Amino acid sequence: MTSSVSKSLSKIITFANDTLDQLPTEKEPKSLYRPIHHIVSNKGKQIRSILALLTYDMFGRDINDLKEIILAIEGLHHFTLIHDDVMDNSHLRRGEETINKKWSNNQAILSGDVLLIQSYQYLLASKFSNNVILKDFTNTAVLICEGQQLDLDFQHQKHLTKDQYFNMIRLKTGMLIAFSLVAPSLLTSFGKKNVVTMRSIGELLGDLFQIQDDYLDLYGDTLSLGKVIGGDILEMKKTFLYVTAFHNANSIQKKELVRIYHGNYNDRINEVISLYDNLNVAESVQDVINKLSSR
Amino acid sequence: MTSSVSKSLSKIITFANDTLDQLPTEKEPKSLYRPIHHIVSNKGKQIRSILALLTYDMFGRDINDLKEIILAIEGLHHFTLIHDDVMDNSHLRRGEETINKKWSNNQAILSGDVLLIQSYQYLLASKFSNNVILKDFTNTAVLICEGQQLDLDFQHQKHLTKDQYFNMIRLKTGMLIAFSLVAPSLLTSFGKKNVVTMRSIGELLGDLFQIQDDYLDLYGDTLSLGKVIGGDILEMKKTFLYVTAFHNANSIQKKELVRIYHGNYNDRINEVISLYDNLNVAESVQDVINKLSSR
Repeated sequence: MTSSVSKSLSKIITFANDTLDQLPTEKEPKSLYRPIHHIVSNKGKQIRSILALLTYDMFGRDINDLKEIILAIEGLHHFTLIHDDVMDNSHLRRGEETINKKWSNNQAILSGDVLLIQSYQYLLASKFSNNVILKDFTNTAVLICEGQQLDLDFQHQKHLTKDQYFNMIRLKTGMLIAFSLVAPSLLTSFGKKNVVTMRSIGELLGDLFQIQDDYLDLYGDTLSLGKVIGGDILEMKKTFLYVTAFHNANSIQKKELVRIYHGNYNDRINEVISLYDNLNVAESVQDVINKLSSR
Repeated sequence: MTSSVSKSLSKIITFANDTLDQLPTEKEPKSLYRPIHHIVSNKGKQIRSILALLTYDMFGRDINDLKEIILAIEGLHHFTLIHDDVMDNSHLRRGEETINKKWSNNQAILSGDVLLIQSYQYLLASKFSNNVILKDFTNTAVLICEGQQLDLDFQHQKHLTKDQYFNMIRLKTGMLIAFSLVAPSLLTSFGKKNVVTMRSIGELLGDLFQIQDDYLDLYGDTLSLGKVIGGDILEMKKTFLYVTAFHNANSIQKKELVRIYHGNYNDRINEVISLYDNLNVAESVQDVINKLSSR
């Protein structure tokens, strides 16, 4: 990395951080807005903000212009996290209690709702706000819900093809990452000509990001991840690990996988790990990650 | 009512009905959109649509132009109903099972989310879509959430002034009714000059509507209402009945009211009714309704 690129990146990360700090408001009623502060202040990677800022910077523009748009993107993203945590019954995120755990499911529903609506306030406050951006943002948000629905539906579905998996994660994860690249592109004349490319880069990054997320849910460590290991198994999520295991298994192993994954055993996580080990799941998934990364 | 007004009203009601039928989509995944169909097809009074259409008609315009805007209003309204039913643990609405009862809390959260976002799709599809309408709609949605938060917070608060009550219902109910009058006004040159008046009429109607709703929750009948009688008491809601009872009570009766309302008794509803009877709550509330109606 050249010195000027790394200087630019460090400026972008600082800007993304400072902007995210402005997401939660100090408005009344505090009971509504304080939970948003709790979840946002415990910062994640801000991958979407950083991708948006990098894109805009790459097209030679001043990143300060993008503030409201990245607030809208982060607002929408954090809204999905807050509601997903209720739906997945998650109690830990980035090492802190989720809103549903610290307050209640009701609080998480309502604070999530207002955050989604606030993301429109930010978007509408941007000097670049126009019908194209607003429609794209709105369609993205609809598709995220559809992806989350498939994710929930698949909990009760024993077999999933790779195509079904990729369709689900593209909706759930890829669309917003793609929007983070597309929105700043739409604001520049050179970017406009490259929207299709930017969108497909976004979708590829989304795939990578979600597969990595699935991998780390089981093979990461609680300390650096800040969440419970194997949470996806507990919720019978159809992750890339599961899809890969199913793909690698013979017919007897398939039956065994379905039985253990959807059963009600103590120590189900360790039983699944041992099955995954026999099926070389970790290695297969790493191969896919490497292949996608080198595209 | 003159014949031409009643003809116009009947045309408006038919139009509102036909429009509402278009709110749920047949899109995939069905598991996401079917619950919206369930809740919307069981039609309510469509008071917001009808007010919007009446306003636009009054200013001499063609109501067909308003289709997307009333879809947005009804979408936002039904989103709040769906999420409120989860938060209030309601199992019956308009005589049918709520989404949270018929499917699950998770389904109600997610189908509600997508409906809120779809309401933006409708608004953005309107040929009148502009920043003023979009911002007003968005601010309205934020205020509804703030009102719902106060409603939840007040469940744990024993004493509530009338001012606090009116502030809560104006946010929770009044703002969207006001928007239903204001949005069509903003679209006409004569209406634009009267936005302040239209907004205050909307707020007054909202007050009336909510007080009537509080009254009917206890003194209506399940059959015509399609919901459980006394649901507000079960959820310790601070309704206008409660606020009025508190206002009418002497200090001993106040203590009794607080104790029974927040206690864990069998037959709490009947105990509250008997207290309300002693305090002439029904009559006092009817007086307020009459006074507001004649303004």
